[in-house]
Amino acid sequence: MLEFHTAGESHGPAIITLIRGLPANLEVDIPFINRELSRRQSGFGSGGRMKIEKDEVEILGGVRWGKTLGGPVVFEVKNRDYENWSTLMDPRGSAPSSYEEITIPRPGHADLGGMVKYRFSDLRNVIERASARETVGKCVAGAVAKVFLRHFGVKVGGFVESIGEISAQEEMSWEEKISRAESSPLHTYDPEREKEMIELIEKVGEEGDTLGGTFVVVAQGVVPGLGSYGEIQERLDSQLAFFLMGIPGIKGVEVGEGFRSATLRGSQFHDEIFYDSRRLPFPFYRQTFRSGGVEGGISVGDIMWVRCAMKPIPTLRRGLMSVDVREKKAVSARFERSDICAVPRAMVVGEAMLAWVLAAAYRKKFGGDSMEEIEAYFKDYLDYLESFHSLEDGEI
Amino acid sequence: MLEFHTAGESHGPAIITLIRGLPANLEVDIPFINRELSRRQSGFGSGGRMKIEKDEVEILGGVRWGKTLGGPVVFEVKNRDYENWSTLMDPRGSAPSSYEEITIPRPGHADLGGMVKYRFSDLRNVIERASARETVGKCVAGAVAKVFLRHFGVKVGGFVESIGEISAQEEMSWEEKISRAESSPLHTYDPEREKEMIELIEKVGEEGDTLGGTFVVVAQGVVPGLGSYGEIQERLDSQLAFFLMGIPGIKGVEVGEGFRSATLRGSQFHDEIFYDSRRLPFPFYRQTFRSGGVEGGISVGDIMWVRCAMKPIPTLRRGLMSVDVREKKAVSARFERSDICAVPRAMVVGEAMLAWVLAAAYRKKFGGDSMEEIEAYFKDYLDYLESFHSLEDGEI
Amino acid sequence: MLEFHTAGESHGPAIITLIRGLPANLEVDIPFINRELSRRQSGFGSGGRMKIEKDEVEILGGVRWGKTLGGPVVFEVKNRDYENWSTLMDPRGSAPSSYEEITIPRPGHADLGGMVKYRFSDLRNVIERASARETVGKCVAGAVAKVFLRHFGVKVGGFVESIGEISAQEEMSWEEKISRAESSPLHTYDPEREKEMIELIEKVGEEGDTLGGTFVVVAQGVVPGLGSYGEIQERLDSQLAFFLMGIPGIKGVEVGEGFRSATLRGSQFHDEIFYDSRRLPFPFYRQTFRSGGVEGGISVGDIMWVRCAMKPIPTLRRGLMSVDVREKKAVSARFERSDICAVPRAMVVGEAMLAWVLAAAYRKKFGGDSMEEIEAYFKDYLDYLESFHSLEDGEI
Amino acid sequence: MLEFHTAGESHGPAIITLIRGLPANLEVDIPFINRELSRRQSGFGSGGRMKIEKDEVEILGGVRWGKTLGGPVVFEVKNRDYENWSTLMDPRGSAPSSYEEITIPRPGHADLGGMVKYRFSDLRNVIERASARETVGKCVAGAVAKVFLRHFGVKVGGFVESIGEISAQEEMSWEEKISRAESSPLHTYDPEREKEMIELIEKVGEEGDTLGGTFVVVAQGVVPGLGSYGEIQERLDSQLAFFLMGIPGIKGVEVGEGFRSATLRGSQFHDEIFYDSRRLPFPFYRQTFRSGGVEGGISVGDIMWVRCAMKPIPTLRRGLMSVDVREKKAVSARFERSDICAVPRAMVVGEAMLAWVLAAAYRKKFGGDSMEEIEAYFKDYLDYLESFHSLEDGEI
Repeated sequence: MLEFHTAGESHGPAIITLIRGLPANLEVDIPFINRELSRRQSGFGSGGRMKIEKDEVEILGGVRWGKTLGGPVVFEVKNRDYENWSTLMDPRGSAPSSYEEITIPRPGHADLGGMVKYRFSDLRNVIERASARETVGKCVAGAVAKVFLRHFGVKVGGFVESIGEISAQEEMSWEEKISRAESSPLHTYDPEREKEMIELIEKVGEEGDTLGGTFVVVAQGVVPGLGSYGEIQERLDSQLAFFLMGIPGIKGVEVGEGFRSATLRGSQFHDEIFYDSRRLPFPFYRQTFRSGGVEGGISVGDIMWVRCAMKPIPTLRRGLMSVDVREKKAVSARFERSDICAVPRAMVVGEAMLAWVLAAAYRKKFGGDSMEEIEAYFKDYLDYLESFHSLEDGEI
Repeated sequence: MLEFHTAGESHGPAIITLIRGLPANLEVDIPFINRELSRRQSGFGSGGRMKIEKDEVEILGGVRWGKTLGGPVVFEVKNRDYENWSTLMDPRGSAPSSYEEITIPRPGHADLGGMVKYRFSDLRNVIERASARETVGKCVAGAVAKVFLRHFGVKVGGFVESIGEISAQEEMSWEEKISRAESSPLHTYDPEREKEMIELIEKVGEEGDTLGGTFVVVAQGVVPGLGSYGEIQERLDSQLAFFLMGIPGIKGVEVGEGFRSATLRGSQFHDEIFYDSRRLPFPFYRQTFRSGGVEGGISVGDIMWVRCAMKPIPTLRRGLMSVDVREKKAVSARFERSDICAVPRAMVVGEAMLAWVLAAAYRKKFGGDSMEEIEAYFKDYLDYLESFHSLEDGEI
Repeated sequence: MLEFHTAGESHGPAIITLIRGLPANLEVDIPFINRELSRRQSGFGSGGRMKIEKDEVEILGGVRWGKTLGGPVVFEVKNRDYENWSTLMDPRGSAPSSYEEITIPRPGHADLGGMVKYRFSDLRNVIERASARETVGKCVAGAVAKVFLRHFGVKVGGFVESIGEISAQEEMSWEEKISRAESSPLHTYDPEREKEMIELIEKVGEEGDTLGGTFVVVAQGVVPGLGSYGEIQERLDSQLAFFLMGIPGIKGVEVGEGFRSATLRGSQFHDEIFYDSRRLPFPFYRQTFRSGGVEGGISVGDIMWVRCAMKPIPTLRRGLMSVDVREKKAVSARFERSDICAVPRAMVVGEAMLAWVLAAAYRKKFGGDSMEEIEAYFKDYLDYLESFHSLEDGEI
Repeated sequence: MLEFHTAGESHGPAIITLIRGLPANLEVDIPFINRELSRRQSGFGSGGRMKIEKDEVEILGGVRWGKTLGGPVVFEVKNRDYENWSTLMDPRGSAPSSYEEITIPRPGHADLGGMVKYRFSDLRNVIERASARETVGKCVAGAVAKVFLRHFGVKVGGFVESIGEISAQEEMSWEEKISRAESSPLHTYDPEREKEMIELIEKVGEEGDTLGGTFVVVAQGVVPGLGSYGEIQERLDSQLAFFLMGIPGIKGVEVGEGFRSATLRGSQFHDEIFYDSRRLPFPFYRQTFRSGGVEGGISVGDIMWVRCAMKPIPTLRRGLMSVDVREKKAVSARFERSDICAVPRAMVVGEAMLAWVLAAAYRKKFGGDSMEEIEAYFKDYLDYLESFHSLEDGEI
């Protein structure tokens, strides 16, 4: 029902985001969307690109006077760097008679696979779309999702948990972790470890190497009953895995304490159920969320969280071994300007994808064509949750 | 293009699998499908259900004399236990005037969420579909996918890596691990550890508790160039995550060394590229597959593998705390007959889902409407791979 | 959101209908579904098959005690004729060493195209799925849609308008046309013309020829605001055209007075808008429905109707010229037992498809996971319609 | 597999077309696309808008040096009129404290339905997207489809058949009709009737009224075996109906002689099958195409054609009766600048949609990721067609 498509190359004219299925009369908070784009660009350890681009959205269709019109909405983020690439990346015209093709694929990138798949002789044709710059589009979609979710009391945040082998360790609440991460250079919450992480990034960078890490994204204020167990297509956990694994560089996704759960007994892992009639909107609650807030593919209510593992960036100054596809000679992989560690920025994209999955689930459950209509139906649902099973048999 | 749907309840008449998008003239190897169903039922640590049911498919449509007809194919696996449940699970008729509703949701199951979502007063309505029995349908789809993939030289296998805190440890090749797992009670490859695992399962079972674990599924003989980096919908890693996370009980998925990658340097993680003109069909190859055989959402070629984490089974004899939704009183969660550890069987389902994702990717790349047509196009592609970039510039 | 798939061959074991996206707690009215199947089999001019088969549904999954469970629902209609075809259409086994392949494609059928597409040597492989028997599945889906729509006050009916060159002509209300058609042998409303139609069918049948005709399907009690103009995928008229043109034999579809509209002036065609505060639920109304009740892809409210043209049945006793694909010799097309005129029965399928499109539109607009939830949201919407624009500016 | 989305409002910044699923290395012929846009704007009987806008595409993503890159492609056609509407249609900012809302819905437009659906108080919010200007996006998609189809020898054209009650009548070949229509003011082929049509348009325009008509779109050079009978989703006729009925103003679609077929006998209607081993690529051929070139949902090969009925434009100078939704008073519907007859331009959009359906069908049948790959597979298929059934039994 809710669907987004991104398009555009890293050094082409723009990154485009087209969103289908937004209701009418949603206030599109452009300053907020721009702040999300700026969060995506912030964070210690970024290379030079972030300074060139100061991303801002323009709207090409679907919005009037700040509100959605019910049809598809299109956002454009211009690539400011395009002016330096307007010959090399011109959509028009034809290839110059002579230019330097890139023919050495980098291990860990889409390079070789992309070249084979699309029958390109110049790797630039792969690199340009298989670039982390595409995540600008994902962040736009996610920012719109967050704006939509506000109407239902859902907040989405996140924090970095580890960089390389160094993990944040302090215990504190979700709120505190998120709030601390918001103002931290690495989007993490443990200032002691953050210092070590920064030192590590600097050291590894000097060695011409790169780093990965893990992050957590969290939604608060979720209603129970989203998703379903009935079909794989309807499961929330499948959706989460799909959208988070689809972020460039992500190689592992767990819903809650996924891999740790595999080492625990049932009695240690599962989140017991409690009842307190004063808790609203839903008096049945959990004290723990080891499940990530998803059981059997359905939202438990309250919290939902996912952890992702990001691999080290595959563009290394100390090149890995590769092969020149034209010469068929072993060579060291080429280096393009690149970051040392992108985990803090990937975390922002992770938030966007979590927000997206939830927005789609709300959109599906509550139907409707305008914010007014959806909010009316949502209010009905809150009333239902509040009185859940307080009626007679068969009258739920 | 290739799409499956499962239907049916655990104690209803049957589990149905409907597959769309199969080409015509695919030989449906029914004995093989039945063997896959029997693999799903085998494995140490299973409870009583496995003995009642000996699953076998019947075909209700889409196949004539063992070959597909190009339209949808429907498989039925009868639930032999249905005869004992024909009153309680009758699709017809109406609810008896008096029967015992189940009203105590089990933590870790879809119970509470399902009840809220669908407004049921009897939890049985949730339990029946949110049951691992649904994976019969997934295994049928996966077995058909395996039969299809055979035509392209792709083999799919798997093995259990850990049960609770005990991990298999011996080093050996994929082939060996898979082959040993095939004949092992726990579908694992390290007989020493397997003994410990079995002891653990027995001990934990006696304590009324349950266990999870991890498994790996592997495809061999994959061509490069499946999937894409261009869009999240086209990424192979997203697809893998979606289908594997959608298996009941799975809480974590990593493509290759996902979570470990987050702790490594770029120079330690990425799989270097080599060339040997004698290697067919694709002379560019890898010696390592830490990436899981997917880079930038595209298949690298040769190997593809995924690791999954399964949580402990949420139905415990030593009940977790819950709440009777009717009485609103804290109670111990109810116990239904259940396994202690389902990891070996989930691994078989994992193979099915990996096979499915690959079959869909082959189906998409090679188009066609009959096996003969697809095989012709595939042969073209192998020729192309063999000569990859040995032609003049721009002629790839 | 709401989706159905049919499967099964004309003389195979069964016709299967799998429906996804039904809400929970919908009472599945099996006697009604069977009556719809029986309506599909009735009507003057049918051949012998209708007497062999007395279609009845069985439910294989997704329903308990007559109510949906929220997951996929599977219906099976056994082919009673299968017992006579169990060797020739056995899903198992392999082709007998010798049997008579059908190699003469019939003009007007999928025969030649299907043979080419799927690389079959025996036309039986095409004929079996490209058979009007598949519409059993469509009727099951449509009957379920009708049961769903009842909850929202929507009724779907239809009538035959013409057979060959003879058209029904009396003027009367929709209700009266539908009600008369219900008890008429040809499902039409003008008894005078019906006599002529029957005579024509008899005469044409004696000549070894066949007939087509037109029918109208109508929904009453539709709310305004279904569908959309914003995107082709969301337009109701596109959906109607898709599902009605997809009925075997249908070659033309018009929403309202489609082809006649092309000959009229704007002032003669468009349906003027009136207001009466006492009309509920929506005080803005039409006196005419030349548009078919769809303007700009959106439902106008009250009535929705579509007219379809059905070609004459392509299986003729007096064979058309064709070519034996094996011998490459011109021959007369072969004859299989067949009807002379299938328009009355196609009309029943047309109702099913109209009901389906509407059910899907209601499902999308009102979201929800159970009948109780959808009905609550629908009630909200009726309240809104009633007070449409009676509020202050900007408060609609 | 191939999918397009349009976005943008009539007087907003731009009309956007996003296309997914194009293969890599397709040469995007921009001059051709612009010519198609200019054809859409030409034709006698257009109002003033056509003179303001001279539509030209810019590419925002997915193309480098004139060739597709395998990811999504985005086209932008700027609305030159936007500069006059930049306040009234500004995506940013908020509604002015005072401006004149449009509150009188026009019969025949999406106005009232759209207002109800999306809860707008200003009809401008509906009008802007429910505008024929959206068809710019459809024409861009169709032009790209035509460029793609060229590689497979498929040409798409069309002609107007009637305006109001006046029909073109001369008999001639498809080629001649299309070629004459190309240079005719009304895109029709009978110069005698065209004079009458023009006079009629002028007369009706003077009376403040509007006209509809019919057109035919034709593809030549189609291969047999596209689409399928097996499922409604796969039928070519369903697809054609969906995309052609989705053009604003179209109320009727017939595949070939749809409505006339309903009046004919089987022996008069069906297209007999002939064989000539010298005809390539497919020696089985037809002399007539009354079926529109689609039998049982599958392409017959050679020709495919569809006829559409367009209603008269619903914006009339002599206003129809309507109701002011705010005042609840009967009034005459408001007039916005509008055409008198849009049939010649709708025909161009019709070509676009026919091309789209075919491009999608080729894309699906031949798979592949680059033009080179698809062309290789297509060549295989031509070889197969040529030798169809000249092999031994079972070896087709």
